Amino acid sequence: MDCMKVKGSIVVVSGPSGSGKTSLARAVCEEMGDKAYFSISTTTRAKREGEVDGVDYFFVSKEEFLKDIEDGYFLEWAEVHGNFYGTSKKQINEALNQGKIVFLDIDVQGHEAVRKAYPDIVTSVFVTTKDKNTLIERLQKRGTENEESIEVRMINALHEMKKIPEYDFLLINDDFDKAKEFLKGVALSSLIKTSKYDIDKFINCWKGN
Amino acid sequence: MDCMKVKGSIVVVSGPSGSGKTSLARAVCEEMGDKAYFSISTTTRAKREGEVDGVDYFFVSKEEFLKDIEDGYFLEWAEVHGNFYGTSKKQINEALNQGKIVFLDIDVQGHEAVRKAYPDIVTSVFVTTKDKNTLIERLQKRGTENEESIEVRMINALHEMKKIPEYDFLLINDDFDKAKEFLKGVALSSLIKTSKYDIDKFINCWKGN
Repeated sequence: MDCMKVKGSIVVVSGPSGSGKTSLARAVCEEMGDKAYFSISTTTRAKREGEVDGVDYFFVSKEEFLKDIEDGYFLEWAEVHGNFYGTSKKQINEALNQGKIVFLDIDVQGHEAVRKAYPDIVTSVFVTTKDKNTLIERLQKRGTENEESIEVRMINALHEMKKIPEYDFLLINDDFDKAKEFLKGVALSSLIKTSKYDIDKFINCWKGN
Repeated sequence: MDCMKVKGSIVVVSGPSGSGKTSLARAVCEEMGDKAYFSISTTTRAKREGEVDGVDYFFVSKEEFLKDIEDGYFLEWAEVHGNFYGTSKKQINEALNQGKIVFLDIDVQGHEAVRKAYPDIVTSVFVTTKDKNTLIERLQKRGTENEESIEVRMINALHEMKKIPEYDFLLINDDFDKAKEFLKGVALSSLIKTSKYDIDKFINCWKGN
């Protein structure tokens, strides 16, 4: 008898650009194989060098994006730094039905929307660097940002960090491998959250009724 | 600069006798080495074959136990199946100050007491078998329980299971190695809980103030 059917869970990963949240989430997701699903966002921003459509993002035009919003295609969407980003409902629900851990790499607004839509199955992690200078250095190394855009990103970073108390976990990405272990721990634990289950039903089944 | 000093956390593991909670917690604790501390309880119950004083429990007389209660020595204590069990404050606080994950193998009453004493740093896991018959079989295999004592333990099991909603996680110990991975994930995540930190202070430090 299996009184506790596996249901999926959602792990929201947020944090400033340059915090390494995407690399961390992708690395954990890859290690977990079949058990996890990394949700690919749809965006209107320009493809960066090395990025692949359907792997890094689904790259679409502003017109297509606005039509998808109208069609109710997105679980959440947001405009960040002048570009649109969105998460499609369909793929997430499919992965959840398969009992997977769904990683969502979204911003603080997206987190609020997802938590409202799935209050019982969401676990959230805010990823950041150990200090501001480390974040600035990482953005400079990226080479795609000028001084002005780095300044904008720092203002946004501090704005986002004010929302840390809304997150379940705060992860300092200083040592990548250590941070990966922590995120993997969070992801595994998300599957056995009490809030995911109907406990009365579980106890009845457990007794053999 | 280290804006997020490591502070310890507490992982409460509860569950019916025979659920395997103690073996699981000890196995995870051993794997984590220096990072974890398995709190050894004090008890008045008779030593079972193979048990070692100071390893499995601190075995004391009823008189000693009652004196310790009077001296405020215990964080929590309880009478279960006619025997006393207690958790000493001193060792826990020492381990927490060293940034360790403290495992407490205690019952549902103990969980309530510990959560009240340390609301921000407690994570709790309820461990049980996949169904009632599996629990009965495990108790029978133990060989130390007669039919009557098994019946008492089953009544207690169901009584404790009503408290599952007060726990953060529900862990079915069906496959020991898998259950161990989940408990390890929970333990790691407990260290980075947002509730452990003063976020305003963290942000100020992060900015370099």
